[in-house]
Amino acid sequence: MNFKKKLDKIIAKSNSLLSIGLDPELSKIPKSLLSLEDPLFQFNKAIIDATFDLVCVYKPNTAFYEAYGIEGIESLKKTIEYIKTSYPEIPIIADAKRADIGRTSEKYAKSVFDYFGCDAVTVNPYLGLDSIEPFLKYEDKGIIVLCRTSNPSASDFQDLMIGNNPLYIHVAKKVVEWDKKYHNCLMVVGATWPEQLKEIRKIAPGMFFLVPGIGSQGGDLKKTLHYGLTNSRSGLIIHSSSAIIYASSENDFAQKAREAAKTLRDEINKER
Amino acid sequence: MNFKKKLDKIIAKSNSLLSIGLDPELSKIPKSLLSLEDPLFQFNKAIIDATFDLVCVYKPNTAFYEAYGIEGIESLKKTIEYIKTSYPEIPIIADAKRADIGRTSEKYAKSVFDYFGCDAVTVNPYLGLDSIEPFLKYEDKGIIVLCRTSNPSASDFQDLMIGNNPLYIHVAKKVVEWDKKYHNCLMVVGATWPEQLKEIRKIAPGMFFLVPGIGSQGGDLKKTLHYGLTNSRSGLIIHSSSAIIYASSENDFAQKAREAAKTLRDEINKER
Repeated sequence: MNFKKKLDKIIAKSNSLLSIGLDPELSKIPKSLLSLEDPLFQFNKAIIDATFDLVCVYKPNTAFYEAYGIEGIESLKKTIEYIKTSYPEIPIIADAKRADIGRTSEKYAKSVFDYFGCDAVTVNPYLGLDSIEPFLKYEDKGIIVLCRTSNPSASDFQDLMIGNNPLYIHVAKKVVEWDKKYHNCLMVVGATWPEQLKEIRKIAPGMFFLVPGIGSQGGDLKKTLHYGLTNSRSGLIIHSSSAIIYASSENDFAQKAREAAKTLRDEINKER
Repeated sequence: MNFKKKLDKIIAKSNSLLSIGLDPELSKIPKSLLSLEDPLFQFNKAIIDATFDLVCVYKPNTAFYEAYGIEGIESLKKTIEYIKTSYPEIPIIADAKRADIGRTSEKYAKSVFDYFGCDAVTVNPYLGLDSIEPFLKYEDKGIIVLCRTSNPSASDFQDLMIGNNPLYIHVAKKVVEWDKKYHNCLMVVGATWPEQLKEIRKIAPGMFFLVPGIGSQGGDLKKTLHYGLTNSRSGLIIHSSSAIIYASSENDFAQKAREAAKTLRDEINKER
């Protein structure tokens, strides 16, 4: 199914705009898991089973798996397969921030969509359209372009003024242009920059934004929702990772993750 | 050993500024290899054994391996281990174009340097310094920042004018600034843009540039060398992939790759 339709459907079903980041680290997961086969997968599985009815997407970040080499990538593959088998209605975003020259980006798209079977991917705009087009051509997939990222150094280049507008506004305008042709674009806009989110929403009134930065990065949830929600009180995927998956480092981690996820989902819904 | 020292040493020993891209595709390698176990690795091994004395680096692009999933990544791992064991004096650049928020970039750095054991990595500057710093902190490794890429759409954002200078010049200036602190920066500058290369050389007179775009992308070798060589007639890593590794699609592919590599190395040296 088309990613955006799948997303709309699950948002309605789970009454949720919440994305949970499946970014496990061996040094942070409960020690009791470490003796199991594939502790990263076991951790993810427990989190997923405890939160599946509270989310609109799961978003594994590829870096957390690649750090453990091939074994880690096997855990990622297994995690994705588990979601696709057990909770096929929940879309999976590969947070991979890929982009290369066209014929190389084709290979990344093949990996993320054909091999891993993810529903959407994050991509970096620095190389321009031909680096993103191989992803865009997967018309049923969601292509989530970095616009204004949540990290402090985002301002290094993204805020540089080109005429009267900063670079990230130029990126947002290009993404809107690309979306007119491919109809499958989204953008990453960090919750740490609510004023910028407001500007980007003006440029892309109906587009879905993936919004990281709530929680440990200190993003402002109320402002994010105030400035970011579309007219239909949707259009945002509010992402949280550490604050949910590491709500407890004890054996009750899955239950505590559920509680944290439910709290955040409900907080979001109060403002919708 | 420190990446730049390793690079200077091999450039002197092989009398070469040539980088060969190890970017194998099952549909392009000789059919006779397909029945072997791990044809991607076997292809790479044959290319490496035939060209090791003609190059200053090997540069596998991660996308070409990720396209084949875990099996492909195993071929990448094996290829890197083969170079490190058989030709330990040749540095390996992981062309991965990674970058994420700081604590996530840490994981990518761990993957590329600690797990795969590469000597250098390409990174994307769009997220700013804190996304690149986790790589920079590996002081013995080479951090190669995308500045002006070789693809046609590079101009979409990289040429946008900020005051009197395009974005890529701002990136180049930042990289020079970062290099003052970390001493391990390089830049990617496409051979398809010799005029831009000239400008970037002015900003970073002594820095090594990785220059893709010669060969199938149509970059101008003479102009690249004319504008890009440093005062010591070095400072460039001239990259070629398809034109060398697919010089023949028959069983003589390794020999033909050697011939193509030798021709290009010698052409480069004529202008040095």
